[in-house]
Amino acid sequence: MTNDDYFKNPIRHAHVRQGMTVAELAREFDKCAFGAGRLAKAIKIYRAMQADDVTRFFGLAGAMIPAGMRQIIADLIKHGNINALVTTGANLVHDMIEAFGGEHCRGECTVDDIELKSARIDRIYDVFLSDEHFTTFEKRFDEIIDDIVDSYPQRQFTISDFLKEIGRRITDRNSILRAASDFNVPIFCPAIADSSIGLQSWIFGYKRNLQVDAFMDIRQIMDICYNAKRAGALFVGGGVPKNFIMQSMLLIPKGFDFAIQLTMDSPETGGLSGATLDEAKSWGKIGERAETVTVYSDATITLPLLVAAMSEQTKG
Amino acid sequence: MTNDDYFKNPIRHAHVRQGMTVAELAREFDKCAFGAGRLAKAIKIYRAMQADDVTRFFGLAGAMIPAGMRQIIADLIKHGNINALVTTGANLVHDMIEAFGGEHCRGECTVDDIELKSARIDRIYDVFLSDEHFTTFEKRFDEIIDDIVDSYPQRQFTISDFLKEIGRRITDRNSILRAASDFNVPIFCPAIADSSIGLQSWIFGYKRNLQVDAFMDIRQIMDICYNAKRAGALFVGGGVPKNFIMQSMLLIPKGFDFAIQLTMDSPETGGLSGATLDEAKSWGKIGERAETVTVYSDATITLPLLVAAMSEQTKG
Amino acid sequence: MTNDDYFKNPIRHAHVRQGMTVAELAREFDKCAFGAGRLAKAIKIYRAMQADDVTRFFGLAGAMIPAGMRQIIADLIKHGNINALVTTGANLVHDMIEAFGGEHCRGECTVDDIELKSARIDRIYDVFLSDEHFTTFEKRFDEIIDDIVDSYPQRQFTISDFLKEIGRRITDRNSILRAASDFNVPIFCPAIADSSIGLQSWIFGYKRNLQVDAFMDIRQIMDICYNAKRAGALFVGGGVPKNFIMQSMLLIPKGFDFAIQLTMDSPETGGLSGATLDEAKSWGKIGERAETVTVYSDATITLPLLVAAMSEQTKG
Amino acid sequence: MTNDDYFKNPIRHAHVRQGMTVAELAREFDKCAFGAGRLAKAIKIYRAMQADDVTRFFGLAGAMIPAGMRQIIADLIKHGNINALVTTGANLVHDMIEAFGGEHCRGECTVDDIELKSARIDRIYDVFLSDEHFTTFEKRFDEIIDDIVDSYPQRQFTISDFLKEIGRRITDRNSILRAASDFNVPIFCPAIADSSIGLQSWIFGYKRNLQVDAFMDIRQIMDICYNAKRAGALFVGGGVPKNFIMQSMLLIPKGFDFAIQLTMDSPETGGLSGATLDEAKSWGKIGERAETVTVYSDATITLPLLVAAMSEQTKG
Repeated sequence: MTNDDYFKNPIRHAHVRQGMTVAELAREFDKCAFGAGRLAKAIKIYRAMQADDVTRFFGLAGAMIPAGMRQIIADLIKHGNINALVTTGANLVHDMIEAFGGEHCRGECTVDDIELKSARIDRIYDVFLSDEHFTTFEKRFDEIIDDIVDSYPQRQFTISDFLKEIGRRITDRNSILRAASDFNVPIFCPAIADSSIGLQSWIFGYKRNLQVDAFMDIRQIMDICYNAKRAGALFVGGGVPKNFIMQSMLLIPKGFDFAIQLTMDSPETGGLSGATLDEAKSWGKIGERAETVTVYSDATITLPLLVAAMSEQTKG
Repeated sequence: MTNDDYFKNPIRHAHVRQGMTVAELAREFDKCAFGAGRLAKAIKIYRAMQADDVTRFFGLAGAMIPAGMRQIIADLIKHGNINALVTTGANLVHDMIEAFGGEHCRGECTVDDIELKSARIDRIYDVFLSDEHFTTFEKRFDEIIDDIVDSYPQRQFTISDFLKEIGRRITDRNSILRAASDFNVPIFCPAIADSSIGLQSWIFGYKRNLQVDAFMDIRQIMDICYNAKRAGALFVGGGVPKNFIMQSMLLIPKGFDFAIQLTMDSPETGGLSGATLDEAKSWGKIGERAETVTVYSDATITLPLLVAAMSEQTKG
Repeated sequence: MTNDDYFKNPIRHAHVRQGMTVAELAREFDKCAFGAGRLAKAIKIYRAMQADDVTRFFGLAGAMIPAGMRQIIADLIKHGNINALVTTGANLVHDMIEAFGGEHCRGECTVDDIELKSARIDRIYDVFLSDEHFTTFEKRFDEIIDDIVDSYPQRQFTISDFLKEIGRRITDRNSILRAASDFNVPIFCPAIADSSIGLQSWIFGYKRNLQVDAFMDIRQIMDICYNAKRAGALFVGGGVPKNFIMQSMLLIPKGFDFAIQLTMDSPETGGLSGATLDEAKSWGKIGERAETVTVYSDATITLPLLVAAMSEQTKG
Repeated sequence: MTNDDYFKNPIRHAHVRQGMTVAELAREFDKCAFGAGRLAKAIKIYRAMQADDVTRFFGLAGAMIPAGMRQIIADLIKHGNINALVTTGANLVHDMIEAFGGEHCRGECTVDDIELKSARIDRIYDVFLSDEHFTTFEKRFDEIIDDIVDSYPQRQFTISDFLKEIGRRITDRNSILRAASDFNVPIFCPAIADSSIGLQSWIFGYKRNLQVDAFMDIRQIMDICYNAKRAGALFVGGGVPKNFIMQSMLLIPKGFDFAIQLTMDSPETGGLSGATLDEAKSWGKIGERAETVTVYSDATITLPLLVAAMSEQTKG
């Protein structure tokens, strides 16, 4: 490397103007380093990932639905920006809670939780949620799985097939489950038992036979990977969604061509959630020449920004 | 509250002496605030949790087995300090890798991951692992599940029953899976598909019929909660293990009586992993009068310390 | 509190559109919780802080100048949005390095630092900086303080007076030091010795007598606090800038009326940098009824966003 | 690198036993990776730093004195383990508060800060402190600087000389300031104005002439660096103490031979506090072949552990 190589990207300093668009702000970020520079790089990678020959995975951990990201995810599905979604049971439960008329509310994180409990309010950081919504969820979800078993009395479901059948029976078109069903985007949720979907499905099992296999939808995600000409992954948070997407490339000769991670987890804990995308290259999950970037910043801020800046580009 | 209430615990300042024991150091932490004070509180709670009428849950996330915590977990099981273990597929895979003769090695986190890949080395932060060990794992694990299906040709397994059968077939008595099987401690792993156990079980499914249900071991963990006179939980990291233990109390009138969290995740991200234990009180997962503490510090340091200080107490 | 109070701010979910402006994105953030909700609140507070009767403090820690925030800070000074700036010596040194023609460049954080050293490149996370620029800085800065001592041979300077004299002698109008001098905005830098300004001033002291008092500009910042009808503070990072602004209110009966903190430091470490703004209320640094918010997210992303959204509002 | 090089340090797994000493626990950490492995390395480096030809710097940021680390620091000074201390004004103020009979108390971090304020209690995370102690501090500190000016009516002090004179006038032998004075260990505090020492010294300046120079003790720390045969630094937290110690090597041909960082700040923010020790090698602050390690974990836990394990070694 010559010294010129080190100095080929001078910091030009962000310039902020009145009435500027998000895409213009993104161009200013591109003049900067640290998080701003990384977010600018993420936007470029995300745009490249929208090419026709790229299969797009979306790993969604964290309590992103309660926090207000539901519409963005649903729209990404509707607009063809997600080809496979991997998420947690909790995000799907909270998607259904809203589909069934429930609301999450912005509250405070410095409150007396015992007072909340006596008011029958559940807290997720600074989000409040009435316990009643879970009662509605339980009733409505029970009806849905009852109908599913009516339709397919002897079927053994994969988790993603089960979620697809649930999505079909949701009337709210802004629901992530419904949108995924409408647009034929598979949802994977390996830890589905670890949620109120799990609790209710287990209770349902006392009255009727519902069979959901723990392993069998690995085939589907592997097939998607295998058939992808190029593959890209956008990770919001870490956890099971990140790992499950990553491991789907373990048995495939090639790895991901693009990867973006929006997270607050740092590598220093040694956990998978905060692991660098470089680490995944040692395993072959991410290709040697892949374009990758991690943005260490709150994803409720960076995800909308990323999507707004990506959309705008396709317009201009 | 009178002012005397605010001032009843003066900081006495830690005093460090030559040759002091870990339990003595813990007493010095008890004179302090911040992480040291919280760890001292965690040790007290952990001691209280060892009472005969307490059912003890252990939630183990993170790459704790590769990092060197395997013996401690196995010993806790053998000594009766864990009544139910909830963990990730990855931790169980790495437990088996060692049981089958593989080794994890301390390396560096600042390395060229592409160089590692060409040397067929997988990296987990500063741990190196030869890819060969996965080949051995695949072969040996295939033999084990083959034998399980031989023994129970038509059985539909819960995940924990499946793990118990695996544990029985492991010869290494220091294995967590084996110890859990020997001492009749159930292991729950809701996201089992999200690991090489999942990948291999799915591949195995092409040649023989292996049925593992996604939901059905919820019953077992609920029964353990229901039958517990008092219940305590120790969480190392967050993720699915934390959530699954917490949610097992959702349908039970009482919540946990004790809870300790050793983590580097902070509440500010809004995710479940970093959520305060107070937040869980709003949901009723943790009892109103429960003794709880979170220690924000590296768990590979605090877990051994907690266990060493707990053990010593039972001696004196 | 009635239940209606808990539920008065339903999460409406962010909606992201093509070509949307930053201010429109900010309105979407306002429908969300977690970081997005807090950033929306920060924008509202920041707008309120621009009222004529508010004195505005800006605490700037971190390596924000190398990272590309120089223009934004300079413009805030020029546009009257900062009435007193408190920062680190390092930020001022890097401001001068650019004023003297040097450049910071976006590089990588995964590099061989020993290779960098042999190429005479200094690294600040993912920013590269040629060592030559320090040579230029030393020469030019020496000329400037020489000229200052020529102008005021016997004067004992406060730190802020000294910085003002430096600013006057900088020709680059985009320099923070120059802008502050032009627009009569005092810069406070209590830890000035902890920077190359310190090193060079000390070396200069061997040839000529330069007297800068450690304590005496406390008076000036106290006077600004005392004379403020209302006071607001924007903190980027923590450290000495945060503490020095906070302590300036310790001896004043009232505290800050507005406070915004953009940081990645979390409260759990117990340090001042990550301390909540509530904590400052116990000390009386922040008023009981002050509007405050902390946004835990990368400031190179949130600061431009905050400023862009603030500016736009003043237009409409 | 051959594959054998990658695999030369197999993880042996920590073994925790009843009644084990801290040094024994440290040996178990040495079998592990992640934080435990790094702490084990820190202990080895710290032992090596105790050699006769090593000059030992200690950078103490964070609210370590309120949190209970006062005795440990004072003892390190008394036992010759610190040759130069760099810290914040706050740590010195809280050292004096205790020297003057005040107490810090362990409280809670989830309290109503406005209630605390009305009870005249100042909060530092989970530490409570009566406001009265500041009144005592102000009175006693005023007497001390009055006496200093009586003794040296015309003297212009460096900050470290000023602190030495203060230390001499403190009667509590457990005070850090007193111990440093007794054992002739210089204390540097570049941001001294950013503390109640600063406020009180400035108020004092209205009645009598007290001259403390902002830059002049750079000479003393540079001399210590220049004269060191080998040099080692232990950093607790980052901030000004870390930077000031680091920059003292900037003008010296060699850099530090040993460096240990105990911190919760991660590199990803780009700030100096979380910067890796490798980054400092690009600047030449740390030598190319230096032994360095960063332990990302709560320093109120790791500092006592480090010192206890270091002490024990010298016994055996």
